[in-house]
Amino acid sequence: MMRTRPLKVALLGCGVVGSEVARIMTTHADDLTARIGAPVELAGIAVRRPDRVREGIPAELVTTDAMELVKREDVDVVIEVIGGIEPARELITTAFAHGASVVSANKALVAADGAALHAAAERHGADLYYEAAVAGAIPLVRPLRESLAGDKVNRVLGIVNGTTNFILDKMDTSGAGYSEALDEATALGYAEADPTADVEGFDAAAKAAILAGIAFHTRVTIDDVHREGLTEVTASDIASAKRMGCTVKLLAICERAADGASVTARVHPAMIPLSHPLASVREAYNAVFVESDAAGQLMFYGPGAGGSPTASAVLGDLVAVCRNKVAGTTGPGESAYTQLPVSPMGEVVTRYHISLDVADKSGVLAQVATVFAEHGVSIDTVRQQGRPDADGEASLVVVTHRAADAALSSTVEALRGLDTVRGVASIMRVEGE
Amino acid sequence: MMRTRPLKVALLGCGVVGSEVARIMTTHADDLTARIGAPVELAGIAVRRPDRVREGIPAELVTTDAMELVKREDVDVVIEVIGGIEPARELITTAFAHGASVVSANKALVAADGAALHAAAERHGADLYYEAAVAGAIPLVRPLRESLAGDKVNRVLGIVNGTTNFILDKMDTSGAGYSEALDEATALGYAEADPTADVEGFDAAAKAAILAGIAFHTRVTIDDVHREGLTEVTASDIASAKRMGCTVKLLAICERAADGASVTARVHPAMIPLSHPLASVREAYNAVFVESDAAGQLMFYGPGAGGSPTASAVLGDLVAVCRNKVAGTTGPGESAYTQLPVSPMGEVVTRYHISLDVADKSGVLAQVATVFAEHGVSIDTVRQQGRPDADGEASLVVVTHRAADAALSSTVEALRGLDTVRGVASIMRVEGE
Repeated sequence: MMRTRPLKVALLGCGVVGSEVARIMTTHADDLTARIGAPVELAGIAVRRPDRVREGIPAELVTTDAMELVKREDVDVVIEVIGGIEPARELITTAFAHGASVVSANKALVAADGAALHAAAERHGADLYYEAAVAGAIPLVRPLRESLAGDKVNRVLGIVNGTTNFILDKMDTSGAGYSEALDEATALGYAEADPTADVEGFDAAAKAAILAGIAFHTRVTIDDVHREGLTEVTASDIASAKRMGCTVKLLAICERAADGASVTARVHPAMIPLSHPLASVREAYNAVFVESDAAGQLMFYGPGAGGSPTASAVLGDLVAVCRNKVAGTTGPGESAYTQLPVSPMGEVVTRYHISLDVADKSGVLAQVATVFAEHGVSIDTVRQQGRPDADGEASLVVVTHRAADAALSSTVEALRGLDTVRGVASIMRVEGE
Repeated sequence: MMRTRPLKVALLGCGVVGSEVARIMTTHADDLTARIGAPVELAGIAVRRPDRVREGIPAELVTTDAMELVKREDVDVVIEVIGGIEPARELITTAFAHGASVVSANKALVAADGAALHAAAERHGADLYYEAAVAGAIPLVRPLRESLAGDKVNRVLGIVNGTTNFILDKMDTSGAGYSEALDEATALGYAEADPTADVEGFDAAAKAAILAGIAFHTRVTIDDVHREGLTEVTASDIASAKRMGCTVKLLAICERAADGASVTARVHPAMIPLSHPLASVREAYNAVFVESDAAGQLMFYGPGAGGSPTASAVLGDLVAVCRNKVAGTTGPGESAYTQLPVSPMGEVVTRYHISLDVADKSGVLAQVATVFAEHGVSIDTVRQQGRPDADGEASLVVVTHRAADAALSSTVEALRGLDTVRGVASIMRVEGE
């Protein structure tokens, strides 16, 4: 089985993930050789700043010309860990055109343009693997694509962004507000200097798109994913959640509609009961629930980011892609045969927690209840309370039964029109029940 | 890509798992075709009792001659869900000899004879897949074998038997004794009429052997696994665990030795802290922790048994094996290149909780402490308490620091020799800290 010509790997990017990939490829070369059935070695490492000191990285492998590297005829596999859309896309498609398979950790690119990349890979008989693009080291792409290939997945529900989970965990445990918790996350290195991609939910939305596509065997891009970040979650929302026996998490939720004819994908903060296993996912950890017809509920938990965990996922893919090369085959490509359409957010059905500031006088509850009824949104519980700090104002907390998002939106619209409703303090979905 | 000759599948066994496999193959035929790239159909179903009514199973497919079925030239894949060593082994090796690949849910056979089966598969260019043999629907074999193929796994720690977890959960929540909890498990269908394989740990030991072999790329059979069941766990042990902020679980633990030169595999009841994620695994659920160099801690959770979940795992393997057939290749075979030896239980290092019945007089603690010290076992905490129900007796609860199992055994041996020690009430390992 063992062949002697080594497989050559081009590494694009040598930051926290890339340097760890290079390190493990060197220190665990014998293990990789045994597991692949052929030796594997680095052919070159493309970096932007060649002068930076990189411990343990052979200087003669370093180049700034990534394009030349992916065109090299002796390169069998390209590992792309530079992120972003360009130049990653052009480098990857060039790699395919030159016969190389690709392992990528690039969630933004796969979520934006996965179908075209898969098509390019297939055209050139190459593999495209990207386990590291979703939830770091946690095996998700492979279990969904392969372990559950004989099952029907109905729902994927998870915490797929560590930064926001860290922030919400802080707010929950310390009572801190959003800004304060973000500052702590930044100071500890959990949030980047520009935290937009995390806190506005772009990162989670990219992962939701990838998971939905694989889970439902259809095409979902990041543009199909309804996205709300957590910048508007307040300490008061967290306190409300606690009163309900819940906590707030930023969730990525991919669902097959009840009639099976469409799917939805969304990212937003939501209340989940403390008894739900996702409620106890602390700090920057990730966890994903998968619900399927035959398997029932499965959960996958682990570190969702970081150099080493992401490198673990990259190297798992590297071994698979190299084995395929040795066997002269390719792994499973894109599976989008169901062609299920992605429905807009308005068709999502879930429960809601709505906080209203209302005039503190009789008849308000009846007015509010009428508005809900008129829009077909059924109320589960209402809690009414005077607010000692506001003259003549009270607050009304309504939790609904399951209703379509569009119905809830028009309900809220109508509530805003009532002169007894001074304001809608917050609206949050309730999941995981 | 689509080929038109259907892949033919022989199903051996049509009990709770087999009938569910047959049902899904029929109802989800179009999905399976799309995912495999070729139609797949049942060629025959071997059963022991042909007269039994099986809803939805075409009578013309049913046969009692399993051997003839696996020898059929048109059979591409054999699914074996009959369990036990024989005739399963002969049927599987015959299937390989006739060119078929095999998907099995047979933990006992794989744990007893996996190496020979893998060798037979490789000899005939066939696949042997058995995700369903370990923890039902939870993807574990594939993540360990493929997702973590570029990482170094150091430890696998899990609850891999649902029956015993149900029993221990009952004992923990209701204070019931072992027999009472077993009766309830039997009444609810969680325990079989003869519960030996579960409660004596044979089932978990088979799974531990399979997991250790894959995780450490070496050969581990069920005979290498130290095994203790839970029949001797008492309500008093559970109460002691609670006092320590722990609960008792039957754990399968596979570890690489600190020096990396050997591995161990064991199944036994152990106390784990309530803060450990495995502590909250309720009822008949399974969950497995995997610790590796780069990925860190991963957890996989889900239903560990049952017809549908096991069928989900079988069908995931079926799709993989069929894809390989269509591509004219095989998946990863046995990986046992490290040839790490399996050390005996005496070399396992962990912590211990020991309950002693001692004479209620001064100097006993000093005597006991001396025995521990003489055997090199360091004491972490001691709790001493009079027992109001026993004249002149007290109990002494010792929790040790980490020590080798052999050192602990000789300590206990020496303690039994002290005339102030009336008895050793219980010894339990403490894990997950």
